[in-house]
Amino acid sequence: MTMTPSPSDRFTFGLWTIGWTGTDPFGTPTRADLDPIKGMHKLAELGAYGVTFHDNDLIPFDATSQERELILKNFTGALAETGLKVPMVTTNLFSHPVFKDGGFTSNDRSMRRFALRKVLKNIDLAAELGAETFVMWGGREGSEYDGSKDFAAAFDRMKEGVDTVAGYVKEKGYNLRLAIEPKPNEPRGDIFLPTIGHALAFIAQLDNGDIVGLNPETGHEQMAGLNFTHGIAQALWSGKLFHIDLNGQKSIKFDQDLVFGHGDLSSAFFTVDLLENGFPNGGPRYEGPRHFDYKASRTEGYQGVWESAKANMGMYLMLKERALAFRADPEVQEALQYSGIGELAQPTLAAGESVTDFLADAASFEDFDANAAAERDFGFVKLNQLALEHLMGAR
Amino acid sequence: MTMTPSPSDRFTFGLWTIGWTGTDPFGTPTRADLDPIKGMHKLAELGAYGVTFHDNDLIPFDATSQERELILKNFTGALAETGLKVPMVTTNLFSHPVFKDGGFTSNDRSMRRFALRKVLKNIDLAAELGAETFVMWGGREGSEYDGSKDFAAAFDRMKEGVDTVAGYVKEKGYNLRLAIEPKPNEPRGDIFLPTIGHALAFIAQLDNGDIVGLNPETGHEQMAGLNFTHGIAQALWSGKLFHIDLNGQKSIKFDQDLVFGHGDLSSAFFTVDLLENGFPNGGPRYEGPRHFDYKASRTEGYQGVWESAKANMGMYLMLKERALAFRADPEVQEALQYSGIGELAQPTLAAGESVTDFLADAASFEDFDANAAAERDFGFVKLNQLALEHLMGAR
Amino acid sequence: MTMTPSPSDRFTFGLWTIGWTGTDPFGTPTRADLDPIKGMHKLAELGAYGVTFHDNDLIPFDATSQERELILKNFTGALAETGLKVPMVTTNLFSHPVFKDGGFTSNDRSMRRFALRKVLKNIDLAAELGAETFVMWGGREGSEYDGSKDFAAAFDRMKEGVDTVAGYVKEKGYNLRLAIEPKPNEPRGDIFLPTIGHALAFIAQLDNGDIVGLNPETGHEQMAGLNFTHGIAQALWSGKLFHIDLNGQKSIKFDQDLVFGHGDLSSAFFTVDLLENGFPNGGPRYEGPRHFDYKASRTEGYQGVWESAKANMGMYLMLKERALAFRADPEVQEALQYSGIGELAQPTLAAGESVTDFLADAASFEDFDANAAAERDFGFVKLNQLALEHLMGAR
Amino acid sequence: MTMTPSPSDRFTFGLWTIGWTGTDPFGTPTRADLDPIKGMHKLAELGAYGVTFHDNDLIPFDATSQERELILKNFTGALAETGLKVPMVTTNLFSHPVFKDGGFTSNDRSMRRFALRKVLKNIDLAAELGAETFVMWGGREGSEYDGSKDFAAAFDRMKEGVDTVAGYVKEKGYNLRLAIEPKPNEPRGDIFLPTIGHALAFIAQLDNGDIVGLNPETGHEQMAGLNFTHGIAQALWSGKLFHIDLNGQKSIKFDQDLVFGHGDLSSAFFTVDLLENGFPNGGPRYEGPRHFDYKASRTEGYQGVWESAKANMGMYLMLKERALAFRADPEVQEALQYSGIGELAQPTLAAGESVTDFLADAASFEDFDANAAAERDFGFVKLNQLALEHLMGAR
Repeated sequence: MTMTPSPSDRFTFGLWTIGWTGTDPFGTPTRADLDPIKGMHKLAELGAYGVTFHDNDLIPFDATSQERELILKNFTGALAETGLKVPMVTTNLFSHPVFKDGGFTSNDRSMRRFALRKVLKNIDLAAELGAETFVMWGGREGSEYDGSKDFAAAFDRMKEGVDTVAGYVKEKGYNLRLAIEPKPNEPRGDIFLPTIGHALAFIAQLDNGDIVGLNPETGHEQMAGLNFTHGIAQALWSGKLFHIDLNGQKSIKFDQDLVFGHGDLSSAFFTVDLLENGFPNGGPRYEGPRHFDYKASRTEGYQGVWESAKANMGMYLMLKERALAFRADPEVQEALQYSGIGELAQPTLAAGESVTDFLADAASFEDFDANAAAERDFGFVKLNQLALEHLMGAR
Repeated sequence: MTMTPSPSDRFTFGLWTIGWTGTDPFGTPTRADLDPIKGMHKLAELGAYGVTFHDNDLIPFDATSQERELILKNFTGALAETGLKVPMVTTNLFSHPVFKDGGFTSNDRSMRRFALRKVLKNIDLAAELGAETFVMWGGREGSEYDGSKDFAAAFDRMKEGVDTVAGYVKEKGYNLRLAIEPKPNEPRGDIFLPTIGHALAFIAQLDNGDIVGLNPETGHEQMAGLNFTHGIAQALWSGKLFHIDLNGQKSIKFDQDLVFGHGDLSSAFFTVDLLENGFPNGGPRYEGPRHFDYKASRTEGYQGVWESAKANMGMYLMLKERALAFRADPEVQEALQYSGIGELAQPTLAAGESVTDFLADAASFEDFDANAAAERDFGFVKLNQLALEHLMGAR
Repeated sequence: MTMTPSPSDRFTFGLWTIGWTGTDPFGTPTRADLDPIKGMHKLAELGAYGVTFHDNDLIPFDATSQERELILKNFTGALAETGLKVPMVTTNLFSHPVFKDGGFTSNDRSMRRFALRKVLKNIDLAAELGAETFVMWGGREGSEYDGSKDFAAAFDRMKEGVDTVAGYVKEKGYNLRLAIEPKPNEPRGDIFLPTIGHALAFIAQLDNGDIVGLNPETGHEQMAGLNFTHGIAQALWSGKLFHIDLNGQKSIKFDQDLVFGHGDLSSAFFTVDLLENGFPNGGPRYEGPRHFDYKASRTEGYQGVWESAKANMGMYLMLKERALAFRADPEVQEALQYSGIGELAQPTLAAGESVTDFLADAASFEDFDANAAAERDFGFVKLNQLALEHLMGAR
Repeated sequence: MTMTPSPSDRFTFGLWTIGWTGTDPFGTPTRADLDPIKGMHKLAELGAYGVTFHDNDLIPFDATSQERELILKNFTGALAETGLKVPMVTTNLFSHPVFKDGGFTSNDRSMRRFALRKVLKNIDLAAELGAETFVMWGGREGSEYDGSKDFAAAFDRMKEGVDTVAGYVKEKGYNLRLAIEPKPNEPRGDIFLPTIGHALAFIAQLDNGDIVGLNPETGHEQMAGLNFTHGIAQALWSGKLFHIDLNGQKSIKFDQDLVFGHGDLSSAFFTVDLLENGFPNGGPRYEGPRHFDYKASRTEGYQGVWESAKANMGMYLMLKERALAFRADPEVQEALQYSGIGELAQPTLAAGESVTDFLADAASFEDFDANAAAERDFGFVKLNQLALEHLMGAR
């Protein structure tokens, strides 16, 4: 396989990623503003498939209708010129002070109404641009102090908001699905729907949950010390992995948004293994774009921004190559067999076996020699070593 | 209110908590084995409402039927003598080496069958003893290496297992509900269903999920840096807070199982506030026992074990007293009002307002002055200070 | 004791704390700029003892000499009017892009020279204002990628920088001591001198280390999951606790800078216990100001800023009251006795006992019955419960 | 270079690592006891250089003198047969209940005396076996509750203990150096000397600190979210990296003791880069054994134990090969040059430049154009990408 990215790899980038100028809690920008149009041309040149954006990445919060139209005209012009797609759009409900206590769950109702209208307006734009996924990151929905929120009311409002948006999408007949992006904290002390699990659980309570799924982000799960690949596996198994944000994070700390693979490398390998090879015994697959939500380090200039954009795609392609080789290796197949991975796909009860039958099967319990059975070992360490050898290109 | 625990407070303890002898990864027991019967008498004397247990806390793994019967006879005798209830029972699928790769999700099918039978047998016992909740902690369900599991198959097997157990409960007509206990890691590197959210999401995929809910544990959520009170609030909101494990944990590290309140004290205050006062604007309430899943530190003897058992109940009662006073304080009510907590219970859309109406309401968007609105502040810091002053008995 | 703060309590605040306008990685300011002079008057009114500042909190980075003079004139005027002291001054080596790779350890030598000069200039100002402590927080000294630094060279440069500054202080005969402020990460992926320990170890390598100590911050240690009170105890024991930054943090995550006591409350209790009561068996004491390095939550307006300033002082005073009562309680004294805390002050070897003597003492080893000795328990849980009851005002 | 381990690679293993039978806080052993002699033969066969042990890994806690002698005779016989060395010995001050509150810092003086005698006895054995390093891991020195210790007294006792042992080593003229092993927590809630930094700082307070250094462990630093390579760099820079424990850990959680490289792989790459290539601009080097302190997962049998022993050595050798290639690559050299890594070795002050000269150099401050200088970028992302490409064998 080629290591040069091409649109068929479906690599996408948020405009905010290449456009991040380096402001952080302790410092001012180290890079000048990037013209989104220029950024799009550069991304296309590097082999990207598409771009994504928050409304205000493109259109200033206080733009007039005319400014908005002009900006969008230039943007769609650039799409046409570059061939880039817009598979995903999202809304900024976090930068302006009006969202300081959240968008859908602010204690202030007028703020909630404003937020919801901002989203609905952006839904129209997303549909117009042909996006298939509409991401909702509720970064300001949360609290610093447990006393400052009625949690049940907050979940009610979140449900009301998401159901209203999803209902609107259905009403308009848009070919859009909503994707919630979980994050445990930052900027709020604790954010509602902190993990993939909490967001999946929330979706299960929605009236219009059929078109609502997830946009998990590598680093966000790792900020809670959780295994990202486990997480997206549960989302896939639940039929809800609608989009994905790939990046890098080193252990539990502030949100780093490193280049994909520049955080926990072996975790990245298994993420790509799952995305490219699927579950070992088959099952649901992720078919969407490979979206990078990262930041070029503040020490870099624009040369570094483009190097980092390339690095995301390069890491993915290298990991894909290694993951394909991993699964194809006969010694790996043997180790997988030894570990019983295939056996896990076999139902625990036999076909047609009722609980009554099962309770009557002395071999499974009364006559089962647990000590003897426990002699079986699984060869997991060797299997992992084989994986790492593939990751390191050593086989 | 009195600070002396009584059965009406519904405080319960696991036999494994008072019976923990101090073995840890680096040391052997520091306390002799505790006779469960003796422990039950002591708990009753201290004012507990009931006891809970894993099958093997009471009945050794390799006990004969006769030994089992004798043990149970003594146990039920002690229940009668002490008046203690058994509101919850759970199964040990983690100590014996046969469970080294899990119970319901072991890669070895014979181990899965054995585990499932062990659970079904324990269900009968739980029902017989009048338990209303059957807890399932899958501590060995997980992996150290992402390559060692087919995650989709693992979730399939977990679903098969839980659905089979729940189906059996229904078939037998038992007055039992299952409660899954999430934990992020330890003893496995990553445990499946690592948080409240993941477990709720899993339950939503079950066929018999109506009788399956959660048994969240304070420290387990905090091991992932998550806010426990947020978590149980989402479980309550989802109608799934079936049971609760209260204890203490200090930051993200190994599972400490400290006395309730001896970890994050202000979080414990808000947990009790939610359990005792409910959500500020009403909504679902938790009605089950207050169950302590803790360990008396290894430095203690049995005097320390009983001091720690008392400390759990004492902390709860003190926090309850403070939480009741907090809500009753007019200055707190004023601060809550100021913070807009009541306003959050108000739907974002007006009664009967359609999306079309909403889109037509210029006041909510086109004419909304976001900068002016953002002038509103919420007074959250003062509210939190009031809460802490109540917690500290300073008001 | 009175709960109303007064200058004799020696509470101090950074100008940057009350002046933080709410910018964070995801949002713009929610509060207008605060005039430092106005802030000083307010702090004095609330009972504060002094203010501290980074050079650029007061004097813009690009201020002319004349502007600087005027600002300082107004500032000293306000000091005179309010009676506030300036016990500590520090330098901003992190906001301007020129510091993007650090100040003293930037890979760029011209940047290092500029940083060092900026510090030396600020030393003069600190001395002029009568400060006794000059804090050095090297927030940008670090890396995101291990390959991007020569660590030995970085430590050499850090040593060169600090030794140069300390040498200058000595040369000028200033009554100033330097205090290094450790932090594990944020804004850099990993910061050099990440904890109290690393900074103490670094100081031990300095030529002018006699006037260099620490300014530990509650939340910074807790961001690494470390026990803050243990940390300042080691700094005190090493004779290096020169200054202290009190605030609140909830578990391992981004730097929250909550109000003191609004994070881990029981840890805050033991911090105040150590600061106010000293070690149980005597030893070095902290005599400096109680400095709050916190941020009023972004949801608050200036009313909230002042409430939060008051909350810091109020929490400290309440905790002090409880810590004094804790130590004075006879039951606590008894529990301390039982736990052997006094016995720990007794040397392990007897007075005058040589190693040879010790090796000849069969009672301590050959005849020592370890199993019998292990019967001793320590009553730590009860002691902790007593502490928490005092913290909660329940005794 | 060859990928087959040989004694010249100086790989060493603790007897407790290959001998761990799988007991953990939630489960009993999954493997039978390993005869240490058999284990030594196997390690020799796999290419190891030596073995290390705690006294009680070899000699039971309650062995008689005769049993001890026989065991040691067999052990030295096996050393002779296998050619294995014993470069390091350590003492178990944590398993027996007598150490429940610590060894050198137990609140009980008789326990401290016993612990100190146990260490002194083991020092003799270490010297007799030709060990050069004597590791001291104070896993039980710490607390769960801040009130249960006098921290200053604890540091005094720790100092007394270590100084006594170091004094004894000097008195006897043994060719031994002590190496303290830091760990943040587990089994105690907080352990004294939690990180490399704290231990270095402690050593600086010792009377006999000249022969006391560190034995840092990969996973222990990572349990505090700290960068292991930064840590050992500071230890090297301080002349105190006496020994090293290599293993794997995934994020902040319980102590996993995975195979080296099976945790944070890119961190492992930079650790090996430092150990094998040294600092980019020269400086102190680590010359000791490469010691693995890991556990074969509990799911494995002895086949897995040996696979995991091989995996540690194999990972190290692969990483070494990649690290050598990384430094030799001209494109990497160019990127290092671009990043200014060489420039960091240049002192900030010119040779002979006094502070007065420096203050007079307008070019460094008054005439320095910070905005213009800030245009420099460092190319760190590209450099990291090059490192990862080497790690992945892709260049």
